[in-house]
Amino acid sequence: MPEADTARFLQDLHELRRIGAFKTGVHRPTYSPQDMESRRWLMDKMREAGLEASIDGIGNVFGRHPGPGPHLLAGSHIESQNEAGWLDGALGVVGALAMARAGLPVDVIAFADEEGHFGSFLGSRSSIGELEEAEIDGQVGAGGQKLRDALAGAGLSGLPRLQLDTGRYKGFLEMHIEQGTQLERAGHQVGVVTGIVAIWQYKLVVTGMQDHAGGTTMAERRDAGLTAVRLLAAIDAEFPRHCGPRTTWTCGRIALDPGASSIIPGRAEVLFQFRDIETEVLQRLDAALRRLVQDSNRRERCETELRILGRSTPALSDERLMASLDAAAEAAAPGRWQRLPSGAGHDAQYMARHMPAVMLFVPSIGGISHHWAENTADEDLAMGARVLVDGAARFLAAAG
Amino acid sequence: MPEADTARFLQDLHELRRIGAFKTGVHRPTYSPQDMESRRWLMDKMREAGLEASIDGIGNVFGRHPGPGPHLLAGSHIESQNEAGWLDGALGVVGALAMARAGLPVDVIAFADEEGHFGSFLGSRSSIGELEEAEIDGQVGAGGQKLRDALAGAGLSGLPRLQLDTGRYKGFLEMHIEQGTQLERAGHQVGVVTGIVAIWQYKLVVTGMQDHAGGTTMAERRDAGLTAVRLLAAIDAEFPRHCGPRTTWTCGRIALDPGASSIIPGRAEVLFQFRDIETEVLQRLDAALRRLVQDSNRRERCETELRILGRSTPALSDERLMASLDAAAEAAAPGRWQRLPSGAGHDAQYMARHMPAVMLFVPSIGGISHHWAENTADEDLAMGARVLVDGAARFLAAAG
Repeated sequence: MPEADTARFLQDLHELRRIGAFKTGVHRPTYSPQDMESRRWLMDKMREAGLEASIDGIGNVFGRHPGPGPHLLAGSHIESQNEAGWLDGALGVVGALAMARAGLPVDVIAFADEEGHFGSFLGSRSSIGELEEAEIDGQVGAGGQKLRDALAGAGLSGLPRLQLDTGRYKGFLEMHIEQGTQLERAGHQVGVVTGIVAIWQYKLVVTGMQDHAGGTTMAERRDAGLTAVRLLAAIDAEFPRHCGPRTTWTCGRIALDPGASSIIPGRAEVLFQFRDIETEVLQRLDAALRRLVQDSNRRERCETELRILGRSTPALSDERLMASLDAAAEAAAPGRWQRLPSGAGHDAQYMARHMPAVMLFVPSIGGISHHWAENTADEDLAMGARVLVDGAARFLAAAG
Repeated sequence: MPEADTARFLQDLHELRRIGAFKTGVHRPTYSPQDMESRRWLMDKMREAGLEASIDGIGNVFGRHPGPGPHLLAGSHIESQNEAGWLDGALGVVGALAMARAGLPVDVIAFADEEGHFGSFLGSRSSIGELEEAEIDGQVGAGGQKLRDALAGAGLSGLPRLQLDTGRYKGFLEMHIEQGTQLERAGHQVGVVTGIVAIWQYKLVVTGMQDHAGGTTMAERRDAGLTAVRLLAAIDAEFPRHCGPRTTWTCGRIALDPGASSIIPGRAEVLFQFRDIETEVLQRLDAALRRLVQDSNRRERCETELRILGRSTPALSDERLMASLDAAAEAAAPGRWQRLPSGAGHDAQYMARHMPAVMLFVPSIGGISHHWAENTADEDLAMGARVLVDGAARFLAAAG
């Protein structure tokens, strides 16, 4: 059976870490000189591993296995958040490279802009035909630069965009850091990901009446902030009755207008979201939220409007891919692995729409991610590569 | 007995309204050309009414009654909030002028910057020796201009600052719009103000742990925003048990850091205040707030720190001044007046520290203030002037 060369794998990872190094992490925003340097580095490594390397018009780097199938597809993204960690994305790309180096029939891919400097999953969506030219025309980066200009600056203008021949693949594998503390707390070295949660996002807009905090009695006021607080407190009390075991819900922003100490807020805007892997749970929570808003509108003197910002669908992992990784994990790290869902979005969720897909997590020290301090112990990284390669081999053998 | 010339009073008000006119209101920020024009206008009117007019080094305009006492002091401020109402402040100054025109032995004053474009009650504090040169040196306006530069630009540099001879006065009177809807709702034409509430202001700082909204389970998270919401909901439930009949409490701002939809807030800052006219009620609410914060810190995974931003003292009206205004109101508008506290701060609260003081309110249409749409019916304005002049005369007669 093919085996991962873990020393080589760690060497590749540490080489990549030097491109755009920032403190103990990296700074490689999409299409920046550092990002493009990392993509060229990757193409060299792909060729070294016997793959046919190319880059496409959105920045996807693709390494095609020249031999016979059945084939797998593996990878992740290679750019980073600003001044962020060295493993987020890079790990899945270098892990895919380790699969190729081990002799597996794998195409390796580094998707562009998973981190959303310019758009939402530009590379993975482009590769499956879900990114229109018009969207590329209209996108502007966080720094105000047009996506078209960024592509031109990176020398990508005019290149064709890769369209994956999805029928070519038995499955997609993506290794990634957990970005949470489940594995670390359990003392586990790897996690087999059961799926990627869907995110349902809302904006709650409460309309009251702006007034003087001294002149307006409690009985007269229509305080939009207070209505928002009561509604959020009701959600806090009610959601545990409807959630699943791993549901999360988060209010990330409460903006009171005008936001001064002596003025009763005339308007409140609240960002609220929940995530789960089961559509049924998502629907239950959506219904509960609607009831709570309705209830608030019946009781309160301020009207609350519930606006939907986005509703993704959960991406469930393929059971046979999971079983193969389970077996590889139990063989390499007996009792020190588990299944768990991914609370964050990943390129794998787009691949899962077109082929069996799975992810493999390794622990994040302290759960830190999107920060340069992000890290994982070398032995856990190596264990991840070992399980990834062995699991893929087991899957191909069983599928064979 | 002296009587108000209400036609003349309304004519003065409408003349002043033309200086810095903005829509149906005015724009006369402190020390602006429009503000200085209004101060010069006032000095002319003072001289016309037989007073000795002067302006001092902070912008206070003072009209001294040249005859024998016993004297009263009356007035308010003449600058406006930005693009705000024509009556806020101006009414009290022109009302004081009406007292002088009626022959009452009154010194008229227009305090500078009650509206706080550069500081907090600069004019009234200066006039009673509660404004240090060092504070003037350090103050910077909302637009970034230094107070010293603004004073120089207005031609006030080097002028001495008026120090009121507080022993000269039997009392201080300030007429003002209500800035609420108590009088309007009751169908009353004037209100005799029982005092100016104290404002106790706090900042609640909640410290949690910033984390990924997907990767961090509900059990693991330390959500500073959620702790803030629970605490505010507890205040909402608990404060009605401790408040007085006219207490107000307000949360004007909730800032979650970093404030993004997919990030668990690591920090929350909340501006909270309450107002009451009774020190005992203020102390009861302060104790309740401390208990709630303590309780939160016992239960929650995020620590809340309670910071005091300010605690003013209530300024109670003089009972004899109130009784004189009561009698004048009942004579002029039988059954159409009431006593009520002021929820907003006014220059009178500083005068009340050194002499008997009282305020007289007229209705605000729709309770609107700090907005150019602010207005009061002419007949209510005239009624206010009538009651002010008659009340002052009754007070002096009784004080003999």
